[in-house]
Amino acid sequence: METAILRIGVAGLGRAFSVMLPTFLADSRVRLVAACDPREAARERFRRDFGCPVYQDIESLARDPRVQVVYVASPHQFHAAHTRVAAAHGKDVLVEKPMALSLQECDDMIDACRAAGVRLIVGHCHSFDTPYLRTRELIAGGEFGAVKMIHALNYTDYLFRPRRPEELETARGGGAIFSQAAHQVDIVRMLAGERPVRLRSALGNWHPGRPTEGAYSALLWFESGAYASLSYNGYAHFDSDEWMEWIGEMGGAKNPDDYGQARRRLATLRSPDEEADLKAAGTYGGSSYVAPRASRPPASHQHFGPILVSCEKADLRPMAQDILVYGDATRERRPLPVPAAPRHEVIDELHAAIHGGKPCLHDGRWAKATLEICLAMLQSDAEGRDVLLHHQV
Amino acid sequence: METAILRIGVAGLGRAFSVMLPTFLADSRVRLVAACDPREAARERFRRDFGCPVYQDIESLARDPRVQVVYVASPHQFHAAHTRVAAAHGKDVLVEKPMALSLQECDDMIDACRAAGVRLIVGHCHSFDTPYLRTRELIAGGEFGAVKMIHALNYTDYLFRPRRPEELETARGGGAIFSQAAHQVDIVRMLAGERPVRLRSALGNWHPGRPTEGAYSALLWFESGAYASLSYNGYAHFDSDEWMEWIGEMGGAKNPDDYGQARRRLATLRSPDEEADLKAAGTYGGSSYVAPRASRPPASHQHFGPILVSCEKADLRPMAQDILVYGDATRERRPLPVPAAPRHEVIDELHAAIHGGKPCLHDGRWAKATLEICLAMLQSDAEGRDVLLHHQV
Repeated sequence: METAILRIGVAGLGRAFSVMLPTFLADSRVRLVAACDPREAARERFRRDFGCPVYQDIESLARDPRVQVVYVASPHQFHAAHTRVAAAHGKDVLVEKPMALSLQECDDMIDACRAAGVRLIVGHCHSFDTPYLRTRELIAGGEFGAVKMIHALNYTDYLFRPRRPEELETARGGGAIFSQAAHQVDIVRMLAGERPVRLRSALGNWHPGRPTEGAYSALLWFESGAYASLSYNGYAHFDSDEWMEWIGEMGGAKNPDDYGQARRRLATLRSPDEEADLKAAGTYGGSSYVAPRASRPPASHQHFGPILVSCEKADLRPMAQDILVYGDATRERRPLPVPAAPRHEVIDELHAAIHGGKPCLHDGRWAKATLEICLAMLQSDAEGRDVLLHHQV
Repeated sequence: METAILRIGVAGLGRAFSVMLPTFLADSRVRLVAACDPREAARERFRRDFGCPVYQDIESLARDPRVQVVYVASPHQFHAAHTRVAAAHGKDVLVEKPMALSLQECDDMIDACRAAGVRLIVGHCHSFDTPYLRTRELIAGGEFGAVKMIHALNYTDYLFRPRRPEELETARGGGAIFSQAAHQVDIVRMLAGERPVRLRSALGNWHPGRPTEGAYSALLWFESGAYASLSYNGYAHFDSDEWMEWIGEMGGAKNPDDYGQARRRLATLRSPDEEADLKAAGTYGGSSYVAPRASRPPASHQHFGPILVSCEKADLRPMAQDILVYGDATRERRPLPVPAAPRHEVIDELHAAIHGGKPCLHDGRWAKATLEICLAMLQSDAEGRDVLLHHQV
């Protein structure tokens, strides 16, 4: 069973797929067997690279009997519809975060997968990253007492990376709440290990040319009375990876002297179309796309910025190569294993669910709970009050 | 006028005075001319050190005609009464933070000083520190556009330093809100440069033997829509001075290997009395008190932990030796002048007010506004909702 193969059909060959491809290439448990995408160039490249069928639409992909798992990596606003199609054809589903844009969509997806008897797993999300999974294990071991306070922050140039117009429109799933809070909230929920009950947020939306949320701060309370402070600034000039030993989100070493690149590049673009073209060019099938080098394993884990988990007897700080444990008497580094492949944790969970029959953490209900908090962030800021949470697990 | 002397009478020779003494010794504009304290050993030492009269009570000190300014450095719960006595005798007042424990007390102090025609200045508070004053000047210069988001955090061993019992009792002005938020809130208000309008907070009170607030996170909204996220953890094992280039709150170089000292020392104590004795021993007049060496000027400025001020065109990061300016195109260090003496900024403001007739920033109304926010932190957590602010300036 351990070597059983996951036969994956990819719905959407854009940015999310481009970032997951190194994982698929490096992990012997995965075989890519088909794909669909509206862009002909991407389909052609996939056909050439993997010698397997490609389709223009999700319906055809889901119908293909070779496909066992549909990886839904289409734009956010299509996640729900594509998941339903895949489930209707009896395929297990791995859907990118954010799971969907509304709780109703989440329910539809959960119901469709349950009715079809297929698994639904949501990811990659940075809560899959080994530093967080291991930190949660350490906490669950009881050595450090209860979690009391969590502080998570991340300062990035998120809003200035090349975007399609819809990515800058909140109503279509754009902006930092759907795209970035989805990571941070998921990590904080997992580290806390208990149910959040209420949330208060402040949102930042201050760039006239990119009118969506680029920043937020939020307070999140848990059942026990523990609380978390979350902050994200996607307009940032300061790079908080300075506090992650200059290892970037994707686990690669970062050169602090590569300062201001995203803003500089954006300044050279003359229109939203040109920006969307630039983004497309750099993703799979695009003219400037660079294929991953599967031979070079990553030295560090992926992460989502500095996080401090304060337990009764220690502060834990998940880093890209180890977990810093600041205890009552001493501090120490608990080294993490070198990652076998980037994001192999997603395949671990998918494989264990499908071939091992194991329950998975990142299932539909789990991801719906994160979306509830993201939506509550929008609502709390708009209404100027706490939002109570009702769908937490 | 520039060399006019401030003749200061000290009300309370405890910890606050011990920490201000290097300033008084190093600044030629100051002369210490009298003091009062209930502890005989402290009075005796003061008499020996400065060859001037000492008293058991504030009334006698305030009556002394040599005293021009009363420095109220008594425990928090006496600030209001001692200020009123000083004002009643026509003395200008420098009162330690927190200004008082209630807004009513603040009003009484403001009224008493106004009626007597004396100045009221509240400090030292870390918002006097040059890195913050200069950052405010940079922002006011307009070079970086409007402030949009502030992130302030500070992880310390505050709650494990030796304390008197009242310092661990919120009702008597103890705990991190009165003692530590008073700094952070003051700094954030000054950096924002506009009126806060509402606040939401979460408090941490999780050490059974030290039952007061040791930690908090809060969101603070300003008139323009800008917001700040403030977090403080006085139970911390992680030391956020790591993110201040290992320069400590008092401007001194810190050795990261001096780990866990406060907890280790506390663990050796057997009772609250023993703890209070230890604290008294280390302060002025105590058996283990070490006098400051006035000859050694500080190399760095004091500070209150990592702060990121995000403006439209730059993130500003006030550090102990410079201001880090992360702009759209480049980042740079703007060096700060080496401090002439620790906390000389307090004397600058006091001197300018008393001998230069200048308005001062840290007056009664300013400090009352900070206390309002500290009290709102207690209220917001207790009531589970936003607290609107009505006394901001």
